[in-house]
Amino acid sequence: MADLSPAFLPALEGIATAVEARLEAVLPPVEGPEHRLLAAMRYAVLGGGKRLRPFLTVATADMFGVPRAQSLQAAAAVELLHTYSLVHDDLPAMDDDALRRGQPTVHVKFDEAVAILVGDALLTMAFELLADARLHPDARVRVQMVQALAQAAGPQGMVAGQAIDLAVSHDEADLAAITRLQQMKTGAVIGFCCAAGALLGAATEEQRLALKAYAHDLGLAFQITDDVLDVTGNATQLGKSPGKDMAAGKATFVALLGLEQARQQAAMLGDQASQHLEIFGERAKLLRDLAAFAVVREF
Amino acid sequence: MADLSPAFLPALEGIATAVEARLEAVLPPVEGPEHRLLAAMRYAVLGGGKRLRPFLTVATADMFGVPRAQSLQAAAAVELLHTYSLVHDDLPAMDDDALRRGQPTVHVKFDEAVAILVGDALLTMAFELLADARLHPDARVRVQMVQALAQAAGPQGMVAGQAIDLAVSHDEADLAAITRLQQMKTGAVIGFCCAAGALLGAATEEQRLALKAYAHDLGLAFQITDDVLDVTGNATQLGKSPGKDMAAGKATFVALLGLEQARQQAAMLGDQASQHLEIFGERAKLLRDLAAFAVVREF
Repeated sequence: MADLSPAFLPALEGIATAVEARLEAVLPPVEGPEHRLLAAMRYAVLGGGKRLRPFLTVATADMFGVPRAQSLQAAAAVELLHTYSLVHDDLPAMDDDALRRGQPTVHVKFDEAVAILVGDALLTMAFELLADARLHPDARVRVQMVQALAQAAGPQGMVAGQAIDLAVSHDEADLAAITRLQQMKTGAVIGFCCAAGALLGAATEEQRLALKAYAHDLGLAFQITDDVLDVTGNATQLGKSPGKDMAAGKATFVALLGLEQARQQAAMLGDQASQHLEIFGERAKLLRDLAAFAVVREF
Repeated sequence: MADLSPAFLPALEGIATAVEARLEAVLPPVEGPEHRLLAAMRYAVLGGGKRLRPFLTVATADMFGVPRAQSLQAAAAVELLHTYSLVHDDLPAMDDDALRRGQPTVHVKFDEAVAILVGDALLTMAFELLADARLHPDARVRVQMVQALAQAAGPQGMVAGQAIDLAVSHDEADLAAITRLQQMKTGAVIGFCCAAGALLGAATEEQRLALKAYAHDLGLAFQITDDVLDVTGNATQLGKSPGKDMAAGKATFVALLGLEQARQQAAMLGDQASQHLEIFGERAKLLRDLAAFAVVREF
């Protein structure tokens, strides 16, 4: 595993700050009877999270010289989508989580109805942002982006992964089943982030495929590390309640592989992710750092 | 109020059948662990409902000679969106309804988690359908459609209307507040249907504004009639439980105006809706019928 370059954490923070400003701009507080919905949307979206998906989107687009105004629009869309999925996943009928990003979850802070509507509104806005001319002057790029996000998030992607996670018998699930589930549940949207950067950057087919392979391995490395942190992390660092998957008897990568082998597998996938980026040379430094960070992070 | 033309009900049924076929095509049953999600999506979407929004979309587009393959794609998208809103609105944390379209609601037939995910998936697919080249060969039209639907359904439209409906003090709500609420909650998407037909048909500004005015009055006439039927209808005809708004002490149009004045107001709005269509002459026959039907229907 390569060391993180000194530029990585400042770059992560810089992009987080920039995307935060864009999210703040698209979620202005409002007066009137819809005040509470917008307040809850702002509560869910602003002021928290690692913003890894925005980072991945912007860092990929940066390699192609895409203007930040464009890549931050895509990054804001994917962060709205990600936040919607967290708000709905945390609901009592789903994972029933009380803590997220170090704060009470939306249904705890507000109520369940508001949390359902917050998720619905954020999902809707994600598509609105991608259809906006800020994303790209060519409408063909914008519709491709809408389609790509819908496919990553819809019933062949994230939503299906979540449904399978709830429906599957975790006693009987094997490594292949869990890998497929996680590829749908979290991998598809991570793949979208790289695809979005490539699309904005008019990447060649070779570059697009390299980024797709990178995103695939990155997503798995990231998820395996999440499973490790669910066992080894603490609530303060994670900003969410650890130990829940284990307590629920879920077939996580740690449950299937054991802690040490899961760690090794994540490290191997992180390295492998970086190797897919050879064709980009030094330009891919931040993406390689991200692959290393996905594995060594403690939050 | 004009009489319904004999062509109306067959036309309504014909478009319902055609949109059903399109919905069936975009929601194929699947094998594997995601089977249950897709089965629940099909349960929610197929085989029921008046399909008034698809009718409005297709009938508007027909006036401009838009190919049915295109208008049915828009109609399928709006019906997926409408169904998502019903599935989420029926959840225990929202309106807590057990009956919809004459069948158990999705969370009753399956469970709450599945119902949340079904709504999320249908909303996502609605945007996917609008981004698809089937809708229109010009990507600019497709992004405009995505934006229009997002605005109608998002935190300035339907979702905000639903949030206000849950948050507002119905004891204090007056006619202006309820009209605004309903304009957001149901009117915005009805407006989208007409806007979609106009957009596909490359309508002139004058035509677009006439259709917008029509949709505004139609939406209100429709909603007032819904409130009337909540008092006078029965579960078999309605396919949902009547009397709930009244029992919950909601500030419906009937509660504010009384039954007779609400009926008169709906009839007046239905007439007024039709009058906005004068510039279309005989071409607008079905839309005028729809305005009449919105008021005289018993389901």
